[in-house]
Amino acid sequence: MGGDEGVRVMMAGVALARRRHDGLRFILFGDEARIKAALDSHPNLRAASEVVHSDSVVEGSDKPSVAIRKKRSSMSMAIAAVKAGDAGAAVSAGNTGALMAMAKLALRTMPGVDRPALAAMLPTLGDNDVVMLDLGANTECDARNLVQFGVMGAAYARIALDLDRPRVRLLNIGTEELKGTDEIRDAAAILRAAEMLPLSFEGFTEGDKIGRGDVDVIVCDGFSGNVALKTAEGTARFVTDLLRKAFTSSLRSKIGFLISKPAMHLLKHHLDPNNHNGAVFLGLNGVVVKSHGSANDKGVANAVHVAARLLEEDITRRIAADMAGVAALSAAASKQEFPVK
Amino acid sequence: MGGDEGVRVMMAGVALARRRHDGLRFILFGDEARIKAALDSHPNLRAASEVVHSDSVVEGSDKPSVAIRKKRSSMSMAIAAVKAGDAGAAVSAGNTGALMAMAKLALRTMPGVDRPALAAMLPTLGDNDVVMLDLGANTECDARNLVQFGVMGAAYARIALDLDRPRVRLLNIGTEELKGTDEIRDAAAILRAAEMLPLSFEGFTEGDKIGRGDVDVIVCDGFSGNVALKTAEGTARFVTDLLRKAFTSSLRSKIGFLISKPAMHLLKHHLDPNNHNGAVFLGLNGVVVKSHGSANDKGVANAVHVAARLLEEDITRRIAADMAGVAALSAAASKQEFPVK
Repeated sequence: MGGDEGVRVMMAGVALARRRHDGLRFILFGDEARIKAALDSHPNLRAASEVVHSDSVVEGSDKPSVAIRKKRSSMSMAIAAVKAGDAGAAVSAGNTGALMAMAKLALRTMPGVDRPALAAMLPTLGDNDVVMLDLGANTECDARNLVQFGVMGAAYARIALDLDRPRVRLLNIGTEELKGTDEIRDAAAILRAAEMLPLSFEGFTEGDKIGRGDVDVIVCDGFSGNVALKTAEGTARFVTDLLRKAFTSSLRSKIGFLISKPAMHLLKHHLDPNNHNGAVFLGLNGVVVKSHGSANDKGVANAVHVAARLLEEDITRRIAADMAGVAALSAAASKQEFPVK
Repeated sequence: MGGDEGVRVMMAGVALARRRHDGLRFILFGDEARIKAALDSHPNLRAASEVVHSDSVVEGSDKPSVAIRKKRSSMSMAIAAVKAGDAGAAVSAGNTGALMAMAKLALRTMPGVDRPALAAMLPTLGDNDVVMLDLGANTECDARNLVQFGVMGAAYARIALDLDRPRVRLLNIGTEELKGTDEIRDAAAILRAAEMLPLSFEGFTEGDKIGRGDVDVIVCDGFSGNVALKTAEGTARFVTDLLRKAFTSSLRSKIGFLISKPAMHLLKHHLDPNNHNGAVFLGLNGVVVKSHGSANDKGVANAVHVAARLLEEDITRRIAADMAGVAALSAAASKQEFPVK
């Protein structure tokens, strides 16, 4: 029931995803009549779906504390299905805070993880996208949280970017060892020592290097991650708005624009957030993916694809194994009063 | 002696600024021979300048603790001249951390200000630029710091943007009252109550709204400010790099580019950081302006212009007056155990 564009776009997106992953089956929670009407246009999806009616809807303005009491909402029921083992993953385009609160309450945090994090893929100028986390689930984070985000982000990057040892960096305000907060410097010391983990820790990175393509996972607290993500979105829109203004400023530039249209289309494609849709809650006993409220059918399909890939590659088991390694490391570290060098 | 492009660009920039403010006089600290050689091309500036030789140079890689011991560096001597009253303001294109440390040590923080902040102007889609602070001088900030940044930023905006009551917002990860850290929420409560100050506090803003033009001053801690500023710079470069790639991807798009060149020029002008060069250290007993190391002559002229305007309008006295108002407010607030509502 989430998403600004309603049931039809969600169903069109799921139908697209179903074509890509034809082994998938779907339980569609929401207004039964509207879902069934939308499925009339997608017989292929209908054949792979079960529709379950939900009575209530989590509104965008609902506080998490209000939302979690709506047990018969599509969001609540989808997460309950994951908890019960009826579904492998839940995908929602609804209220992010509500989804996070419900998912934490129902699925619980994995052993070894103190706090789950919200991760997403961002475009870069390199060959690969970059995984960034946390993007807003945890306003303040200590060194342990940041280390765990690094491990979880690397597990995600191994699956989504098909890498053996993703390059991990902590977001900071300079690349020198002395920069930043105690939390960031302590997290760096722990990650630097964690050589047995399937990741390569490469120190700090800065806001202007997020899209450069020379790192696979960027780790930060949820406040600065959210600021960075939104600033990047806002600036991209700012520049393209200026571009549009420039192109309509004279007849000559309008003609230039018409001629350059295929090139502009490439740019638009590269910046289209639908190609990167699907933020992941990492660190829960179950897979939960958030689709952006304004995503189109291609964006929704992408979010479902992300969920499918995480299931196929068993992200939860992978993170659990890596976390066991971190726990061993922390135990060793605490014996020698933390090897912060 | 700072700046990637050396003495010639600095002198060309100062000469440009001198044309705009013909009452200004300059003391130029650095390598005397090189400065005098550069002045040969700018007789107008030479007539208004005194050259003072400095023996040493603060390197970009110097830690602040090393830099402050270089008493005979151009940076140190320029700040000492402000302290002695020989100069009204110091402008430097050198190492930011070193400049901040020296300025704090020599000029001291103003009465009523706990910590100085680094402020800059950013372009927007609106009619005015926006003042943003802190951009990296203070990694962690409490509510008092944020309130003081708001007051200092507003004083700067009144001068630089010629506004009576600048609109001030705190950077946050959502606009609802409950969002963010305790520090941010407490700062919001204090600013909301500060109706006698010459500013209009309008709540929270988010990273994607920095360039929208509907706020005059954006306040944040130095960590998230630095992340936001660098992310905005990086994303603008990212989009223009994509644009360049798109325009060179085919013969057709190359032709389109040639025709659109004047439009592209407009875009480039709007995004040119030289037009916004000159970050200001606010809250010190004296005016210190940081010019970007990569600024061209126009950029340097802009930084000098910023310093001149702050002197003309007596920023230090203005901030002192506003801070007295805040102190009265805080005293009243502490009597009623802080009116955080």
